[in-house]
Amino acid sequence: MKNSSKVIKSSGYSWANVEKREYKTDTQNFKSIHRYTLLTNDLPGLNTETRYFEIQPGGYSSLEHHKHTHSVIIIRGSGSVILDNDLKKIAERDVVYISPETIHQFHADNSEPLGFICMVDCDRDRPKIPGDDAIRSRISTEKVLKKIRK
Amino acid sequence: MKNSSKVIKSSGYSWANVEKREYKTDTQNFKSIHRYTLLTNDLPGLNTETRYFEIQPGGYSSLEHHKHTHSVIIIRGSGSVILDNDLKKIAERDVVYISPETIHQFHADNSEPLGFICMVDCDRDRPKIPGDDAIRSRISTEKVLKKIRK
Repeated sequence: MKNSSKVIKSSGYSWANVEKREYKTDTQNFKSIHRYTLLTNDLPGLNTETRYFEIQPGGYSSLEHHKHTHSVIIIRGSGSVILDNDLKKIAERDVVYISPETIHQFHADNSEPLGFICMVDCDRDRPKIPGDDAIRSRISTEKVLKKIRK
Repeated sequence: MKNSSKVIKSSGYSWANVEKREYKTDTQNFKSIHRYTLLTNDLPGLNTETRYFEIQPGGYSSLEHHKHTHSVIIIRGSGSVILDNDLKKIAERDVVYISPETIHQFHADNSEPLGFICMVDCDRDRPKIPGDDAIRSRISTEKVLKKIRK
């Protein structure tokens, strides 16, 4: 197998020869967020993708759920995350585990960017966007219902 | 499936309710390194483990190779990494990809700790420690041969 080991140098919160991209192109239920895809399935033997997402103050990721998990470590700033009925504050170096089918959404709601590394299986299902009925049937805490952006 | 989503809060470079552990218990070819196992295969649906390793100044990880890959992001300090015939400087937020069977070793050789998140498949082969013959047959650059600690 070809040796494709490498170091991708950072410069602040961007990376050499890695394109800054839109967060998603197929939905609209997010705000002020971009991504860098750092390690992806074109690398031999790799089963997990590593991506960096950054949300600007006031922005948020899409509200979604899916079978695959997210392993997340915050590396810039602070904010909060919805995990079904919980709303948790998050800051640099905190680790977030998002288990299968948990409804989740990240918010940069602390007047600074929120940047995080997010690992996913290369082979994974597509995210689902919950509708109003799904939200009402699964989310019962008022603080989360107020926090959701869709 | 049980919802086991969670936030693990950090305090500096340690994490709430996560034990600081020895790096390894089955080999001795390393120096001044400890680990925190942050997300592991007791979590439902998880295929990738997330660990934090920290090497104190002058320390190094074991020289090894294996079939599974490492996806690494530096989150503290700086140092260097051997990737077969290459010796690369690494610093905070750099990403390191270690492809199958690459001989590798991390060094905290810049008078500060070197701390990094390392992701591996939950289902993986055991690392192999290369002997002198294997090193000589695969490593030809003098700077790497001088850097290796075993």
